[in-house]
Amino acid sequence: MTARMTTIEVSAAERYAYVDLTEELLRAVKDSGVTEGAAIAFCQHTTCALLINEWEEGAMEDFRNRMRALVPDEGMYYAHDVLDRRTQNLDESHERANGHSHLKAMLLSASSHAIPVTAGEPAFGRWQRLILFEMDEPKGRRITFHVFGE
Amino acid sequence: MTARMTTIEVSAAERYAYVDLTEELLRAVKDSGVTEGAAIAFCQHTTCALLINEWEEGAMEDFRNRMRALVPDEGMYYAHDVLDRRTQNLDESHERANGHSHLKAMLLSASSHAIPVTAGEPAFGRWQRLILFEMDEPKGRRITFHVFGE
Amino acid sequence: MTARMTTIEVSAAERYAYVDLTEELLRAVKDSGVTEGAAIAFCQHTTCALLINEWEEGAMEDFRNRMRALVPDEGMYYAHDVLDRRTQNLDESHERANGHSHLKAMLLSASSHAIPVTAGEPAFGRWQRLILFEMDEPKGRRITFHVFGE
Repeated sequence: MTARMTTIEVSAAERYAYVDLTEELLRAVKDSGVTEGAAIAFCQHTTCALLINEWEEGAMEDFRNRMRALVPDEGMYYAHDVLDRRTQNLDESHERANGHSHLKAMLLSASSHAIPVTAGEPAFGRWQRLILFEMDEPKGRRITFHVFGE
Repeated sequence: MTARMTTIEVSAAERYAYVDLTEELLRAVKDSGVTEGAAIAFCQHTTCALLINEWEEGAMEDFRNRMRALVPDEGMYYAHDVLDRRTQNLDESHERANGHSHLKAMLLSASSHAIPVTAGEPAFGRWQRLILFEMDEPKGRRITFHVFGE
Repeated sequence: MTARMTTIEVSAAERYAYVDLTEELLRAVKDSGVTEGAAIAFCQHTTCALLINEWEEGAMEDFRNRMRALVPDEGMYYAHDVLDRRTQNLDESHERANGHSHLKAMLLSASSHAIPVTAGEPAFGRWQRLILFEMDEPKGRRITFHVFGE
């Protein structure tokens, strides 16, 4: 068995922007030398998500709007953002009102995907792309690919 | 290590129907010869989802209704469905107003599952079944199982 | 390749409580002897979920409230809970009105996660923890870790 781990760092252009990671995944699979096996894609953050869907800007705009309807950015009470009540994980130098981003990330529960690899490529269907969805202020986001197989 | 990939194609009876894939998963595990390891189940499409839950028709009806409440099929503006605005991925021969199906699939983020295998079977709990949830017009859906281990 | 499967059983303190499983995952990885590879975390139940996010009680309270807004516990018709209509999977000795818990679990679709392992530890980011979110009456919950690699 062969296995190879690759970590990349990317930044979205702005909050609620998407980053297409499909080429990076393809490269990680190719660089691993694995032709039959699987790839794990893992996002090391708590306020963004990895989606597998179509890269179509209309649908991505719709999804952004729907997520903001289901978990409003503003006008809600979020205990996470009441800093004088919080006792855990406070980083006063840059603590932001990002409770809603955590909630969106938990609702999606999309930190990881496991994708079969065949003929040296992810076994994606015609329209599938691997997409980072940024739901917080943009910053460097680390994504790890672990590819294993023969 | 042993590994085996199996791809099946199934069709749901109608939009919002479910297909129980548990027997197909069991067969893929058995055919692989793996007794201790894991199975990846991966759906190659962008408007359906793989669920792991109970096969109980009441709960499945409830879930269908709830998903339609959270992401309405109709009465909403979905940019994905405004064809004279779209420039990407247009297939005019069969383009459908399925923006809501993409959104539901992104919200579920359930293209893949990774399931331990023990004693030659998926390590499912008593009520767990692997279920395809069709959220678009029914058509052939390809599901890949990658089973690996000893 | 080395692989090791570990199953633990935990109980939440009450409905909508969280249990931090990060230490159990770390131990399973350490006990496997794997330094480079991956870990699958799998929950064998249909009314709870595995989250990967920050352990911050404010955000967890917010998420609990949001899930109850998106899938109400009460005041909704859930076919799953109409016992004189149901014909499937009835266990009359302890059948509970937990339709909403099934729906929440399906919405999260978080039965499994696949997490890269590097330097003998899960490749978690600074704030990531593995968390069981109980959405039903608390009871023993079985979580399986399958760790594999070199």
